[in-house]
Amino acid sequence: MNTPKVNILHAPGQAAQLSRALISTCHTRPLLLAGSRVATSLHPTQTNLSSPSPRNFSTTSVTRLKDFFPAKETAYIRQTPPAWPHHGWTEEEMTSVVPEHRKPETVGDWLAWKLVRICRWATDIATGIRPEQQVDKHHPTTATSADKPLTEAQWLVRFIFLESIAGVPGMVAGMLRHLHSLRRLKRDNGWIETLLEESYNERMHLLTFMKMCEPGLLMKTLILGAQGVFFNAMFLSYLISPKITHRFVGYLEEEAVHTYTRCIREIEEGHLPKWSDEKFEIPEMAVRYWRMPEGKRTMKDLIHYIRADEAVHRGVNHTLSNLDQKEDPNPFVSDYKEGEGGRRPVNPALKPTGFERAEVIG
Amino acid sequence: MNTPKVNILHAPGQAAQLSRALISTCHTRPLLLAGSRVATSLHPTQTNLSSPSPRNFSTTSVTRLKDFFPAKETAYIRQTPPAWPHHGWTEEEMTSVVPEHRKPETVGDWLAWKLVRICRWATDIATGIRPEQQVDKHHPTTATSADKPLTEAQWLVRFIFLESIAGVPGMVAGMLRHLHSLRRLKRDNGWIETLLEESYNERMHLLTFMKMCEPGLLMKTLILGAQGVFFNAMFLSYLISPKITHRFVGYLEEEAVHTYTRCIREIEEGHLPKWSDEKFEIPEMAVRYWRMPEGKRTMKDLIHYIRADEAVHRGVNHTLSNLDQKEDPNPFVSDYKEGEGGRRPVNPALKPTGFERAEVIG
Ligand SMILES: [Fe+2]
Ligand SMILES: [Fe+2]
Ligand SMILES: [Fe+2]
Ligand SMILES: [Fe+2]
Repeated sequence: MNTPKVNILHAPGQAAQLSRALISTCHTRPLLLAGSRVATSLHPTQTNLSSPSPRNFSTTSVTRLKDFFPAKETAYIRQTPPAWPHHGWTEEEMTSVVPEHRKPETVGDWLAWKLVRICRWATDIATGIRPEQQVDKHHPTTATSADKPLTEAQWLVRFIFLESIAGVPGMVAGMLRHLHSLRRLKRDNGWIETLLEESYNERMHLLTFMKMCEPGLLMKTLILGAQGVFFNAMFLSYLISPKITHRFVGYLEEEAVHTYTRCIREIEEGHLPKWSDEKFEIPEMAVRYWRMPEGKRTMKDLIHYIRADEAVHRGVNHTLSNLDQKEDPNPFVSDYKEGEGGRRPVNPALKPTGFERAEVIG
Repeated sequence: MNTPKVNILHAPGQAAQLSRALISTCHTRPLLLAGSRVATSLHPTQTNLSSPSPRNFSTTSVTRLKDFFPAKETAYIRQTPPAWPHHGWTEEEMTSVVPEHRKPETVGDWLAWKLVRICRWATDIATGIRPEQQVDKHHPTTATSADKPLTEAQWLVRFIFLESIAGVPGMVAGMLRHLHSLRRLKRDNGWIETLLEESYNERMHLLTFMKMCEPGLLMKTLILGAQGVFFNAMFLSYLISPKITHRFVGYLEEEAVHTYTRCIREIEEGHLPKWSDEKFEIPEMAVRYWRMPEGKRTMKDLIHYIRADEAVHRGVNHTLSNLDQKEDPNPFVSDYKEGEGGRRPVNPALKPTGFERAEVIG
């Protein structure tokens, strides 16, 4: 109890100093992502000595590059088919995705929107976004140009934060609807599956990025803390108002589409040379999961696939928020079979702001 | 605050009286299942006046028989394909299922086993099982003969209790492993899907029985309370020891196999005439979900399908309990493809007591 160690951790003044140190280091990269393993996933047999690099992240040798899942863990790893196989995306579907914003109409909408603004603000801090890297603050989810681009490391930190959070709401919502169905002895009308599939899809996003870098201790700690807060918030929020919670997720997905659109733009403008390098290889699990065709497996292609997924989440959650949470069926599944007169399922990616209830029910 | 109503609810003496009344009414049927809607699902256009009935449950007219999901709710109901399509069962697979018991070996096993004994004891009370209806207490999960059979109503009460509880652990375990994967930034090794599928399957069991009766207010209240306790218990238990929790579920599934085996036996011995009546129709959702072939759609057939599902849950959970929870892959999924040299998935129904780790890993 009287050891200096305990004193350091518990003395309020020093704790405050520590947390200030944590926050301030978020503006620099090294503590968030572990040294050299960042933003580059060259094939292990290659070196990136020849690749153009505008700034040196680290002086550590590239031989320290490694897959995130260390050898000891892979002893009994077996390749498993995806729980929800991805249907893939066509070029046209992917390039037609645009950042958009659903104007808040009700008090609930407004509350959801403001909460997402706070999350974005916190993420910007964690990502170490400088003022000159900010987009137009009046159009935070649709404007994608800034004076200064983000770096590969900043993007990865942002992606990983975003995705480790994004996998929570679908699982919480799916679970709570499942429990509701069990205890109220009522059918669910098909919502659960879509919600669980969303959370699985987000987890695949996360694991894909995890294959590209190894987060540092600080970042791992921040992710632990963020999940602790976010899981409980989502749990309570979904019990209190699933409608507002789906709206919140809809807005969160607007952010996701925004983030990936800006990233694609900066790749196209040549600001992320490590990812444009032809030697850069995306993780194999991504190629398998999205069934990416040969010759279309660059980092830019990968982000296009992920963005199309986010556009679906955006449309799904904005739509679900517009429905009667207890009575309405999930319009995104159905027993439609060609020529059998069933009801054709709705493509949520078609409407960035979601379908109004009258468009899909009745 | 001073109204007589509040006094009645809060006075300790009277509250105790009330709870005694609740428990004692569990031994009689009417408060648990709502009057006439029990244990019989004759086609709405038929009456059961001609069917043999050894005892009168109620004097209410059969015209009050109705589907559990009332008309107002079905306005926007749409038939949805199953989230996890059932592969169906062959006659041989179903008839080869036998009640079995895995002997507790570790302290954790013993704890899990004792907890299940308590659950069984509570369920027996809720189902109103009389002493002469009990099976041999020294072989509670394998002995299936008793001096006196249960009634259809007792069976339904038991099934619905069992299934409303059974859908919880798979969802809790799947969710906690999902969250673990997100916050630890690690892959899951294929466990989540099997766990979520189990919980979906259990929910289908529940909804099938719900189509056959309408529980009364007391039963609905008991189910609400049971889920409140059980969900929190599972949540904590899985955080503390997933190993013991899977063992617990393994033992719970031994009970399920036992329950359905005894029911099949009592149908075969002619003790449940309402279900043997050729006019008795099982719910259409069951026929669709299990893809039951024509001519094989009696209540006994249905219970055979459900029991085979329970045998899978039993084998899966006993096996998962034998594995390293963090490192080992789920042996029940794999990338096996005929002729491609992958690893063939293991059929969990093959071993009632589960596979030992060495049999499926490495
Ligand atoms: Fe995502
Ligand atoms: Fe998303
Ligand atoms: Fe079941
Ligand atoms: Fe089961």
